[in-house]
Amino acid sequence: MTKWVYSFGGGSAEGRADMKNLLGGKGANLAEMSSLGLPVPPGFTITTEVCTYFYANNRTYPADLEAQVEAALAGLEKAMNAKFGDAENPLLVSVRSGARASMPGMMDTVLNLGLNDATVEGLARRANDPRFAYDSYRRFIQMYGQVVLGVDHHHFEELLESHKNDVGAGLDTDLKAEDWKEIVKGYKAVVERELGEPFPQDPNRQLWGAIGAVFGSWMNQRAITYRRLHGIPADWGTAVNVQCMVFGNMGDDCATGVAFTRNPSTGANEFYGEYLVNAQGEDVVAGIRTPQHLTIAGKEANKSTLPAMEEVMPDVFKQLLEVREKLEKHYRDMQDIEFTVQQKKLYMLQTRTGKRTAQAALKIAVDLAREGLIDRKEAVRRIDPASLDQLLHPRLDPKAKKEILARGLPASPGAASGAVVFSADEAEDRAQKGESVILVRIETSPEDIHGMHAAKGILTTRGGMTSHAAVVARGMGRACVCGAGDLRIDYKAQTMSVRGKTIKAGETITIDGSTGEVMAGAVPTIQPELSGDFATLMSWADEIRTMKVRANAETPLDARTARKFGAEGIGLARTEHMFFEGDRIVAVREMIMADDAEGRKKALAKLLPMQRGDFEELFRIMEGLPVTIRLLDPPLHEFLPKTEAEFEEMAKATGKDLAAIRHRAAALHEANPMLGHRGCRLAITWPEIPEMQARAIFEAACNVQKETGTPVCPEIMIPLIATVKEFEILKKIVDEVGAAVMKEKGVKIDYLTGTMIELPRAALLADKIAESAEFFSYGTNDLTQTCYGLSRDDAGSFLPDYQKQGIFEQDPFVSIDPEGVGELVRIATERGRKTRKKLKLGICGEHGGDPASVFFCQEVGLDYVSCSPYRVPIARLAAAQAVLMGKREIATTA
Amino acid sequence: MTKWVYSFGGGSAEGRADMKNLLGGKGANLAEMSSLGLPVPPGFTITTEVCTYFYANNRTYPADLEAQVEAALAGLEKAMNAKFGDAENPLLVSVRSGARASMPGMMDTVLNLGLNDATVEGLARRANDPRFAYDSYRRFIQMYGQVVLGVDHHHFEELLESHKNDVGAGLDTDLKAEDWKEIVKGYKAVVERELGEPFPQDPNRQLWGAIGAVFGSWMNQRAITYRRLHGIPADWGTAVNVQCMVFGNMGDDCATGVAFTRNPSTGANEFYGEYLVNAQGEDVVAGIRTPQHLTIAGKEANKSTLPAMEEVMPDVFKQLLEVREKLEKHYRDMQDIEFTVQQKKLYMLQTRTGKRTAQAALKIAVDLAREGLIDRKEAVRRIDPASLDQLLHPRLDPKAKKEILARGLPASPGAASGAVVFSADEAEDRAQKGESVILVRIETSPEDIHGMHAAKGILTTRGGMTSHAAVVARGMGRACVCGAGDLRIDYKAQTMSVRGKTIKAGETITIDGSTGEVMAGAVPTIQPELSGDFATLMSWADEIRTMKVRANAETPLDARTARKFGAEGIGLARTEHMFFEGDRIVAVREMIMADDAEGRKKALAKLLPMQRGDFEELFRIMEGLPVTIRLLDPPLHEFLPKTEAEFEEMAKATGKDLAAIRHRAAALHEANPMLGHRGCRLAITWPEIPEMQARAIFEAACNVQKETGTPVCPEIMIPLIATVKEFEILKKIVDEVGAAVMKEKGVKIDYLTGTMIELPRAALLADKIAESAEFFSYGTNDLTQTCYGLSRDDAGSFLPDYQKQGIFEQDPFVSIDPEGVGELVRIATERGRKTRKKLKLGICGEHGGDPASVFFCQEVGLDYVSCSPYRVPIARLAAAQAVLMGKREIATTA
Repeated sequence: MTKWVYSFGGGSAEGRADMKNLLGGKGANLAEMSSLGLPVPPGFTITTEVCTYFYANNRTYPADLEAQVEAALAGLEKAMNAKFGDAENPLLVSVRSGARASMPGMMDTVLNLGLNDATVEGLARRANDPRFAYDSYRRFIQMYGQVVLGVDHHHFEELLESHKNDVGAGLDTDLKAEDWKEIVKGYKAVVERELGEPFPQDPNRQLWGAIGAVFGSWMNQRAITYRRLHGIPADWGTAVNVQCMVFGNMGDDCATGVAFTRNPSTGANEFYGEYLVNAQGEDVVAGIRTPQHLTIAGKEANKSTLPAMEEVMPDVFKQLLEVREKLEKHYRDMQDIEFTVQQKKLYMLQTRTGKRTAQAALKIAVDLAREGLIDRKEAVRRIDPASLDQLLHPRLDPKAKKEILARGLPASPGAASGAVVFSADEAEDRAQKGESVILVRIETSPEDIHGMHAAKGILTTRGGMTSHAAVVARGMGRACVCGAGDLRIDYKAQTMSVRGKTIKAGETITIDGSTGEVMAGAVPTIQPELSGDFATLMSWADEIRTMKVRANAETPLDARTARKFGAEGIGLARTEHMFFEGDRIVAVREMIMADDAEGRKKALAKLLPMQRGDFEELFRIMEGLPVTIRLLDPPLHEFLPKTEAEFEEMAKATGKDLAAIRHRAAALHEANPMLGHRGCRLAITWPEIPEMQARAIFEAACNVQKETGTPVCPEIMIPLIATVKEFEILKKIVDEVGAAVMKEKGVKIDYLTGTMIELPRAALLADKIAESAEFFSYGTNDLTQTCYGLSRDDAGSFLPDYQKQGIFEQDPFVSIDPEGVGELVRIATERGRKTRKKLKLGICGEHGGDPASVFFCQEVGLDYVSCSPYRVPIARLAAAQAVLMGKREIATTA
Repeated sequence: MTKWVYSFGGGSAEGRADMKNLLGGKGANLAEMSSLGLPVPPGFTITTEVCTYFYANNRTYPADLEAQVEAALAGLEKAMNAKFGDAENPLLVSVRSGARASMPGMMDTVLNLGLNDATVEGLARRANDPRFAYDSYRRFIQMYGQVVLGVDHHHFEELLESHKNDVGAGLDTDLKAEDWKEIVKGYKAVVERELGEPFPQDPNRQLWGAIGAVFGSWMNQRAITYRRLHGIPADWGTAVNVQCMVFGNMGDDCATGVAFTRNPSTGANEFYGEYLVNAQGEDVVAGIRTPQHLTIAGKEANKSTLPAMEEVMPDVFKQLLEVREKLEKHYRDMQDIEFTVQQKKLYMLQTRTGKRTAQAALKIAVDLAREGLIDRKEAVRRIDPASLDQLLHPRLDPKAKKEILARGLPASPGAASGAVVFSADEAEDRAQKGESVILVRIETSPEDIHGMHAAKGILTTRGGMTSHAAVVARGMGRACVCGAGDLRIDYKAQTMSVRGKTIKAGETITIDGSTGEVMAGAVPTIQPELSGDFATLMSWADEIRTMKVRANAETPLDARTARKFGAEGIGLARTEHMFFEGDRIVAVREMIMADDAEGRKKALAKLLPMQRGDFEELFRIMEGLPVTIRLLDPPLHEFLPKTEAEFEEMAKATGKDLAAIRHRAAALHEANPMLGHRGCRLAITWPEIPEMQARAIFEAACNVQKETGTPVCPEIMIPLIATVKEFEILKKIVDEVGAAVMKEKGVKIDYLTGTMIELPRAALLADKIAESAEFFSYGTNDLTQTCYGLSRDDAGSFLPDYQKQGIFEQDPFVSIDPEGVGELVRIATERGRKTRKKLKLGICGEHGGDPASVFFCQEVGLDYVSCSPYRVPIARLAAAQAVLMGKREIATTA
């Protein structure tokens, strides 16, 4: 018989923390805490296997589930000495979802289940508080009505508002027991009106309804969106946790709160959390009441006037501190906990690994390693490489003039500027068009996830540091300012205003998620300085990794930045990027317009000293590290003028007439330039170009080697090779020019000549190409384009549909497609190394800075990855993790 | 010791006909004829291995070659009872090239070698004819001077012309012995003047000079061009044949001639050839004198007034007839022979398999099979599938009005119209721009090959049926009219004129290579009717082949043509081709302009009955044969108007304003449409389209199946699949529409749903795609584009360079690239069949009609090939040959 139900409570449990796949995160941790002897209200978990069964069997349950639930429920009754549905001493439970990975706010929850017209009276009597009992009952009806029965929440809210108006109550707390009784009556009438049948009174029916709703919520749109954004497979399923109710809202000796065992924003080793007196769990995170700080230090740091828990309930606070210590020691990581205090007694409702900012993650990992709780490998393993992006993002220039509109909570660090948009849909629309937007909402909800993802930053006027907006923004690495209550938002007028100043939709604002400031216009930003923790963790990563990390760079600035971030060479210097400036573009155009090879050579002679100068600078900066230089790649028409004025300017510069220039431009026009006369094809038809470029490279190498005494290591890369012959013809040119220059200069340069593997044919013929090519660099951008037959420039029109319909799980231009493009890389690697055992292999597409792609590169056995300078740290960390992951787990990734 | 030299003559030989690789075609056949007891002047062959050695060793010879040549030469002296260089009884030899494959006129030849100031006197005495001896000597000096010493022939011609003027001679035959003596003196002076040293008198030096010149000619430009056009590898090399001279110019009992054992134009079993009395070999083919017919029948058929050999030399003619019979029996094929008659004695100088027109090849193969000389398989093997193209080409409409300008010889069948051009370079230039041209020349030479290749037809005013122009044109399948002597060509004025009428360069003419007519303007043509031989050979091919042959067709005309040519179904019906006519394009544009799915559906509803009608017609024509229908493939902007007027028309038709239409056109614009929003990507984003198309297919299938009682076999093909999911989503639409329509109509259709494999990713993931796809059709056009990263539309700018530099041996869009694209096909076939053993596999790119590609398809194991209707016979024949070739030889092809 399959065990579908696992009980916990009273200092023991059937489950464990390592059973997350079966029990979900919440259930596993409740069991673990229970076994640890922490005060957990007893309960049981219905496993994720039931969820899987549920969807595989047309939304039905295993035959023996009901009996197991009954037995577990009986256990609860015994533990609590109460009875489910008993009018005198009713057992009440909460029903919560709990998936394998945390999905905050994604799933639905029902509290106070077991209340009905009879048991509410029993609860009133036992608590000696009819107001509390009826308040609980109306909360239950509202939650259950909404989550299980599908009654829209505005029905309930309208009724509550109108009753408050009727009795002249400003706040919920103004309402008395009799009012709640009336409201309960009204709520039940609402349900009956909307559904055509009365609100269910049978607690068992209530329970099964709630269980079904939790399982059903696994496939709601919010959950599906969240899973898509976070790469969570649909077949993992959720567990259901049924747990005895404890009440934080039974009076002023009751409370409820959430806390992080360390500061989730900075990572500082300080207890960090919020609580509310006389409130039920969801009140804290819902942002309806402003929560109070746990600690006096926290209260003071935030200049709060409300008393800290440390002051109000010192005994309970001391217990909580002990729990904090026990949990960190046990879990060896920062925990995110939920607790309730019922009549001065502390109950732990949840613990889980706390979400944190990238900066905090770094600090916590390094601190924990120093504290001896984890080792360095574990510290390296714990940092999501992609999250480093946040640390490297620009922040506000402290010297910049700022017009501060308002202040809110510093909910997620980083600064962002963008156009104000007031809806998630619009945020997504405009972001897709390449605009930077700031999503401005009164508060956010799970329905806004896609817009938050699309926005550069999020600004809300309500809610605290643990509000939906804050938690989600930190997870996504978006800058976020929360609860900027001075701002007034008018969705209809599409404006936000503060102290008489109005900002319309589309106007630019800047937010600073590290300070909580909201500013008008775009405020200049500067690059972040990296903390010592960053350098420490990177050095630990460098000890572990086996792949080298290079940068794609051709300007001195980029090359210097790359070295600053630890690049071990240049993997891709795109020479054409050097052709666009001032004098150069004139000479380039002169070359294109020349009537014959002689004319081209004349124009190229002007470019030679400029290119040589570029390369000298690069070689100096890289101080003997390898520098891969790609010969001219794009089609010539990219260098031609576009506008009429530019045509005229070119006519003047080249001395040709306008008609000739137009004719040339037309002749160079291509239907599919991506598949046209570019790369090595240009070099084959116009060999003067590679001759000049090779000369510039070798002259620069000789000069710098002579000047510095350090050997220069150029790696000359021929792009877009499809056939062996192309490579041979061009390698001959490179070698001949190289020999000539070295003879002229009397200097010996150790260089390599290799190719980009960026066409499927080159991958398939890698064995033959490797006979003369000394290195391969996988140009996975073009390889993705040709493997998929998909132009990056044109994919935008259908990519969103493709992601929505699950055709692309990942944008293949962001993360390497392991099945198709990856297969070509595998084939080329295998065949290339068969011919040349020590063939140097690297990757220089955008994928070089994508962690999943870096894992792939390690698996395939590349020597290095090359990426944009800012992604170098990400690649270094990902390369280290790739080693730690070992082959088995990487295979899963692929 | 390597044997470098093989002797032959006197009824025996060291070589054999099957030693062509070593001895070249000419040498091998001279040896064979000698062994057959035919009268072959003795000689020896220096092997092709010497040529290979020569080029591999910096143009030097193997050490032991000289001794072997000396020994062979001694053998000749003994056989002829004469001595090389002997002043009394000199041995004279010819030195000729002879490659493995026939390369007519490509290589250089030297005759009468061994003559010098002393031996010429001996020759004069022994022939008792000083005029003959000095004529021979001056011919030798001219040939040797030109071929070996590099003295331009105009020096010699000028001197000859001026001497003729001096003595008042009109023809060469008017010159006497003394004149030739003078001319010889002058020729020697020319050589000494041009080279600074006297003409070599040492026969041994002459011999080695000639041998070196023949080997050297293997790498001259003409030879290189010929090899490129005919796919002959450079490393085959040529042999050198040194053979005792016999003289056809020793008097009126001497003659020389060339003949085909059957008619090379029609294939008729008749002896067919030309001769000249008192002439040396090269005179016949050079076209300087008009040759006479061999047979009386030939003379009469050509209304010649010159006597036939049959009349003039009946005894020798009888001998020749016996030789003809012996050779055909021995070689089991039509032979092209050269002979010389010296003082009534017949000598055979060459035999080789004769070049022939496609029509003749067909007739000869079928006749030989019927005569029992070869079997049916051999007959099938003998026809070059590509040559069938000639039989299928249009010919003149007999009812068309023709303005006949002139008549010439019907040298190569087929009719062609085009602009007159007078040089090969211009022919090539204009043809590259897509113009049809007729190359008009006084005579052609090997330097004109590239222009002949580029032209639709060739017209000359001099030369016979065996002239350079005629032989080459037949080989290339170009229409050719030769020796239209009435025409006067003025290269300088760029005109040709006849009887007062002048045609300028660029004006259009028509030539009929089957009748010899030259006509003004473009004369209408009609499709050829195929001979019974064609049907016979095709039926033999059909018995042999295992692959099916289908056609790419969507119009009723094409479908009918396809069936006429034996297509066994449609392999590719491009539905978009049906969208461009009248009403349809309006509805298509309405669909593109629609604001939402509803609007699109409305427009598609108008297209539905039209598409259904198209499919009904196709299904009726194909009578139960499989019909593969590809869903809409090209990007939508292909259907949009291009000009301002068309935009306005569209605005009217759709009721949208111009700005909206322009906006839509701009929105649909793509940087690389080949890699853009097309194929299944369109169907994914606009599912209304595949829904409509599937409905049209199923409704048509149901209707026609009901109407005819014959099961209709639609195969629905989804284009541009890159991922499994795309295919699954669209197959679901097809299956759902299919089920609905079949239910509505109460008819059951057996259909397949499959995909084009036209992207590398699809090939690599074929195993997964085959889980739901029921067939694959290799779209090798797109697969070539993506595998090479090469746009067919844009490749024109560098393809010529690529072919010239040997990067592409074949245009990969014409003949499948077996290493790259072929590898993808192999991978996909292997992976696809691993999942689905009986996966139906075909090819529907242009390659389906290319013989080499068909061989490849057989090797890989495809079920069928599909090609354009006119190429169906080619594919049928190639498919049969593929079976006959067996695996070993095909591997060589690949």
